[in-house]
Amino acid sequence: MKLSHLNDHGRARMVDVGDKPDTPRQATARGRILMKPETLALIHEGGLPKGDVLAVARVAGVMAAKRTHDLIPMCHPLLLNHISVAFELLAPQQPAGLAAVEIAATVRCIGKTGAEMESLTAVAVAGLTIYDMCKAVDRGMRLEAVRLVNKSGGKSGEWIGE
Amino acid sequence: MKLSHLNDHGRARMVDVGDKPDTPRQATARGRILMKPETLALIHEGGLPKGDVLAVARVAGVMAAKRTHDLIPMCHPLLLNHISVAFELLAPQQPAGLAAVEIAATVRCIGKTGAEMESLTAVAVAGLTIYDMCKAVDRGMRLEAVRLVNKSGGKSGEWIGE
Amino acid sequence: MKLSHLNDHGRARMVDVGDKPDTPRQATARGRILMKPETLALIHEGGLPKGDVLAVARVAGVMAAKRTHDLIPMCHPLLLNHISVAFELLAPQQPAGLAAVEIAATVRCIGKTGAEMESLTAVAVAGLTIYDMCKAVDRGMRLEAVRLVNKSGGKSGEWIGE
Amino acid sequence: MKLSHLNDHGRARMVDVGDKPDTPRQATARGRILMKPETLALIHEGGLPKGDVLAVARVAGVMAAKRTHDLIPMCHPLLLNHISVAFELLAPQQPAGLAAVEIAATVRCIGKTGAEMESLTAVAVAGLTIYDMCKAVDRGMRLEAVRLVNKSGGKSGEWIGE
Amino acid sequence: MKLSHLNDHGRARMVDVGDKPDTPRQATARGRILMKPETLALIHEGGLPKGDVLAVARVAGVMAAKRTHDLIPMCHPLLLNHISVAFELLAPQQPAGLAAVEIAATVRCIGKTGAEMESLTAVAVAGLTIYDMCKAVDRGMRLEAVRLVNKSGGKSGEWIGE
Amino acid sequence: MKLSHLNDHGRARMVDVGDKPDTPRQATARGRILMKPETLALIHEGGLPKGDVLAVARVAGVMAAKRTHDLIPMCHPLLLNHISVAFELLAPQQPAGLAAVEIAATVRCIGKTGAEMESLTAVAVAGLTIYDMCKAVDRGMRLEAVRLVNKSGGKSGEWIGE
Repeated sequence: MKLSHLNDHGRARMVDVGDKPDTPRQATARGRILMKPETLALIHEGGLPKGDVLAVARVAGVMAAKRTHDLIPMCHPLLLNHISVAFELLAPQQPAGLAAVEIAATVRCIGKTGAEMESLTAVAVAGLTIYDMCKAVDRGMRLEAVRLVNKSGGKSGEWIGE
Repeated sequence: MKLSHLNDHGRARMVDVGDKPDTPRQATARGRILMKPETLALIHEGGLPKGDVLAVARVAGVMAAKRTHDLIPMCHPLLLNHISVAFELLAPQQPAGLAAVEIAATVRCIGKTGAEMESLTAVAVAGLTIYDMCKAVDRGMRLEAVRLVNKSGGKSGEWIGE
Repeated sequence: MKLSHLNDHGRARMVDVGDKPDTPRQATARGRILMKPETLALIHEGGLPKGDVLAVARVAGVMAAKRTHDLIPMCHPLLLNHISVAFELLAPQQPAGLAAVEIAATVRCIGKTGAEMESLTAVAVAGLTIYDMCKAVDRGMRLEAVRLVNKSGGKSGEWIGE
Repeated sequence: MKLSHLNDHGRARMVDVGDKPDTPRQATARGRILMKPETLALIHEGGLPKGDVLAVARVAGVMAAKRTHDLIPMCHPLLLNHISVAFELLAPQQPAGLAAVEIAATVRCIGKTGAEMESLTAVAVAGLTIYDMCKAVDRGMRLEAVRLVNKSGGKSGEWIGE
Repeated sequence: MKLSHLNDHGRARMVDVGDKPDTPRQATARGRILMKPETLALIHEGGLPKGDVLAVARVAGVMAAKRTHDLIPMCHPLLLNHISVAFELLAPQQPAGLAAVEIAATVRCIGKTGAEMESLTAVAVAGLTIYDMCKAVDRGMRLEAVRLVNKSGGKSGEWIGE
Repeated sequence: MKLSHLNDHGRARMVDVGDKPDTPRQATARGRILMKPETLALIHEGGLPKGDVLAVARVAGVMAAKRTHDLIPMCHPLLLNHISVAFELLAPQQPAGLAAVEIAATVRCIGKTGAEMESLTAVAVAGLTIYDMCKAVDRGMRLEAVRLVNKSGGKSGEWIGE
């Protein structure tokens, strides 16, 4: 079992993917940002034109996906064909009584390596953007469960997570 | 109660901080990335020169902190005076039996607005980098509990989270 | 009369502003993107949640303002304190019968040089973003009248354009 | 008639181009920056080694074209094969008696989507760079008529504007 | 004999490579940074976990390679498949009695143009990073002999330097 | 004797400069790129409008200086007040009979840390740009002697190198 971005001496490098064929790839990641119910209400209604916080977060997520290889040191550049970022507002849940915005990002490309990192980066940056836009009223928000939920394409093929 | 990055019509803008004084600011954020115990072992020992995965993640976190205002749309540019990123390896815990790398980032500046977003961005990108470097062996890793743990400076002064 | 970014031999350099005091600066730029009336209608109503095209363009303008010194070679980096981008939908006008979105961007900072370029860059990139989002239906849109309308602060003080 | 970067609910996303074939694409955009005749004279002769303002603007336009997908949120990354930026100095014209620099940018690639945005971005940033380098002597310059003049390749094939 | 990035009138442009086939390319560059023997000792041992300076420089070199087209104005964007950066510590040599870190970077891609600039940029930025991390103790370090040592692929095929 | 970017455990961080006063800083770096005499002749005359290669390299150097903190991982962001890049053409010298372009970059700022890295980065990137623009005719060019020649300001004050 080997970490592919480390060479035989454990030094980091961007692993060679030149022998892999270009195949269609898709990856979907999810995460959620927990917040006070009042914060969710402000995002949702609050006299605001619905969705501006989420519109900004969506743009941030899409732009971050395109910049993934510039943020994650050993990540290959990819020509992304599609990026979408979606949100779902989740009512407060027990035990902590916190509301949440669920974030999902799907990225597609045709390439030698998958778009897992791009989808994860989109989710994380969209979540941080929600934090930024709401932090004046709720500094205790938390980004949770940022994870890959499925990916397809490439040698390892289909993978489905939780 | 108002979201400061939205104007009276709910449109996003970068809120004006020009009247605020320049004061020393510090923010610390934390998060953790859950993984299989075998993945942690590979990071920790595995015949590798200890720490290369973490060395790469640390650099990624520091560089991401400096680029925060370029990632988070309404975030102000800041002249950061200090950035540090630290890791702690956590042994497997019940119920899921997962190991983890705990990530902490501290950022300091003297400015009109705080470095909360910079510390959170450093944690998230360091965590995603660990994911990237280990994903060939553990695609199910999850980034959890990315949160501000304390901040000081500015009008709102000291704040301590969980 | 001298172009300040050229030295005595006509070579470009980033002119020295180190002797100037830090003063509050503001600049407002405007421009407009002409389009078919049907395109404006799609932006405005068309069954769409109002404003998503404009929400994306606003974010693009704000982010571009922060990146101005990275785009315009001899432009000084500035710590921007405020950026706002606003839109006004303009009904079709004779002789050409074209509708338009008017774009205005205001930028403020405290610094040794003004924020004119930042406000102009925000307008231009917001306009190009509207083009991008509508080009599938109207490839003939034109960005017009990108100009500084006023600026204040600094040695040259107040300036008001058209 | 649909705006392709918005999904069925009007939310922005980077539209999927994965099913499109890779075809050769070309796009040419034009624009002009109006200025006082004296400003044009300074650019043109003025004891300066001819062309330094334009040399800087040309470089800025080429570099901006490569960064288009990083500026325009829903714009796809492309592997550009060619970028050129050309200038023509235009003598003062009635009624306003203003001189101008006409800017043209041509971009070519082989890809799933066209290079319209890249050529427009090159023109806009080259024009803003001219503004920046001459603004000390002529703050009233205006960027006008930034438009696509032709594009070829892709499903929609040849398009010729004004 | 022509400089390919200049057109017939000597104006810079990004030369058209659209007619070239996509072929596998490799380039290796080398360089070295000279330093006092004591500085090399600090990098090498000095009570430090070996290699942190070099780990940071390696990451910097890899990331810079990916950003080459954003730094070198007329350089084409490339989808890099592999980047590695290696270091060798060189004992002091006469006549000046200076030690050195030798830096080698190898980059591979499949594309229409080679990865020479990417490998050279990786070496230069890795070297500058070593300078940055050691400058508090040795401001007189020098980066020397940054050069292409070999490249393969493309129409001009194999090339071997010194 | 300590490397300031490493903490007590040898881990990299961006060292805290928050307690340092803001003082005027200047740094000048130099380097040279060796080439065949024929290459220098092409840059110098060759029927070309003099200086376009150098004009592009100058812009690249200035822009790279502004992006230094984004390239060198532990380097602090600085608000640069001045950047200039100058070239001198050097006739062939024995023993190797190579010509050269000597590059000098001067950077000034008012800040808590010096602009050494910015001046060195400007020299290196300007030199690599010359390589890029001439590599079709001279792949064996070498970047040599990239070094700090003097710096002033800050606690350590004046420093003069070779």
